[in-house]
Amino acid sequence: MPTTPKSDAFATWLQDVGPVVEMALAEELKRIDKSAMSEALHQALHYSLLGPGKRVRPALCLLACEAHGGRREQALAAGVALEAVHAYSLVHDDLPCMDDDALRRGRPTVHVAFDEASAVLVGDALQAFAFQVLSEQGQTPNALAQVARLAQAAGANGMVGGQALDMEAEGEIVTLQAVLALHRGKTGALLEASLELGALAAGVPPQTAQAWQDFGHAVGLLFQATDDLLDATASSEVLGKTAGKDHAVGKATLAAVLGLDGLSELIAAEVRRAESALSALELPSSPAQEALAALPSFLACRTR
Amino acid sequence: MPTTPKSDAFATWLQDVGPVVEMALAEELKRIDKSAMSEALHQALHYSLLGPGKRVRPALCLLACEAHGGRREQALAAGVALEAVHAYSLVHDDLPCMDDDALRRGRPTVHVAFDEASAVLVGDALQAFAFQVLSEQGQTPNALAQVARLAQAAGANGMVGGQALDMEAEGEIVTLQAVLALHRGKTGALLEASLELGALAAGVPPQTAQAWQDFGHAVGLLFQATDDLLDATASSEVLGKTAGKDHAVGKATLAAVLGLDGLSELIAAEVRRAESALSALELPSSPAQEALAALPSFLACRTR
Repeated sequence: MPTTPKSDAFATWLQDVGPVVEMALAEELKRIDKSAMSEALHQALHYSLLGPGKRVRPALCLLACEAHGGRREQALAAGVALEAVHAYSLVHDDLPCMDDDALRRGRPTVHVAFDEASAVLVGDALQAFAFQVLSEQGQTPNALAQVARLAQAAGANGMVGGQALDMEAEGEIVTLQAVLALHRGKTGALLEASLELGALAAGVPPQTAQAWQDFGHAVGLLFQATDDLLDATASSEVLGKTAGKDHAVGKATLAAVLGLDGLSELIAAEVRRAESALSALELPSSPAQEALAALPSFLACRTR
Repeated sequence: MPTTPKSDAFATWLQDVGPVVEMALAEELKRIDKSAMSEALHQALHYSLLGPGKRVRPALCLLACEAHGGRREQALAAGVALEAVHAYSLVHDDLPCMDDDALRRGRPTVHVAFDEASAVLVGDALQAFAFQVLSEQGQTPNALAQVARLAQAAGANGMVGGQALDMEAEGEIVTLQAVLALHRGKTGALLEASLELGALAAGVPPQTAQAWQDFGHAVGLLFQATDDLLDATASSEVLGKTAGKDHAVGKATLAAVLGLDGLSELIAAEVRRAESALSALELPSSPAQEALAALPSFLACRTR
């Protein structure tokens, strides 16, 4: 039997854990008591958290946990928390006063399907839910460290800070450095945290978990760079969201500051940087390690 | 020297801890690194968290901690976290798509002073900040329990859930039971949690901290009942926010379902319920216990 080519290892792994993550999302959502709450808010919570999604953050979290010898179940709570923060950020970013998007993952955005107030509230509720899931996961020595790491990554010096820089940069002429800074906050911070939370779930001490930062940083940049490339070259139908929008509204993108050729060069360079950062982690050989090794080229070659 | 009349004990205590809380808010905000972030977001964070406020939640938190023999310093991180969640909720509640308020604590609301996107983002950042402060407070055996309690109180089954019910009830004819449910979420949940987080800060086991629920519930209801009464009877100048607004937009208030006489009766009944719930806690005599005992009548008599 031929061995799976290296470049497929991440895709195979993603397919493998997908149903586990989906089940955990639905299961953890049961922490929220439906009986005593607004029916619309309850529906909006399900709509935004359980709708279609690539589940990249939970996948990275479970991978890092397994790469340290942990069981994937140990990282599920953290994976759900990360996806909840990601889902809330999409709902708020899509608001009329932010990116004003009507389409997300092929469906109407929350403020279109429900209303603006519901979109603000469901985002707020999802953020609280993320910290509830982390803090209620039971005996885990690193649960508090996970809360701290997620809070840092989600907040003013992370994801929210990146979105603020992104809003300010709209229509402005910006430097490559400025685009890198806003992307690191907006997308990178949570992707980096995903790996660290997974390592923490495996019981790795917080100082050691920090060693994932370089790999996480490169992966985050790759993710954003390929996102920018797709936005500039693919159709809305393929993407499930409005294509070409970034350019139309004068978003500060890597494509805008580098051009498409420069962007392709950046992607190639980040693939090499990610691969060497992963080697530096000196992980023992395992299916998880192989999937992680395949991640950079998987991202570089993605078509949606 | 005459002893302080009982009814002044809370006001005196509030004055006493006020500067301590203000200093802690400013100090904890330094966790957010100004150098790498949007200047506007940084300003909006300071504007919303350090602006004028009664600091009732931190005060309750410190009081419960001292009532259990803890030092107030032990409860400061939790107090700051509670105030951050409260501040974020005000910023989001004031948004045009929510209560659409232009005035808060005598100043323009955040979306007026900055813009709507900044208001959404600063609220999101403040919520993350709250959990960052709790999780980074250092060695506290109950820190994770505090995170769990705050997340529950802030989320879909607490504050956010109450706000969702409030939005839905606008312009509708609602029952007293429905108004009580939405108030318990919107205002009560965080006030109840304030006392529990304070008890946890003193090292009280989570199960014991739950005993504050009855007192917290009565105090929360008193707080909202007097708020409704003031909205119906006081001027905008005195309140520092738009008076009479609730009635004008058809908000589901206690004043609307009970009338002003019924509301006064409810307030008197809740004062008695709060006093008996406090007695049931069997706290040792202390300045903190005296201040707590004075709280119900302090709330019943407040003029702003």
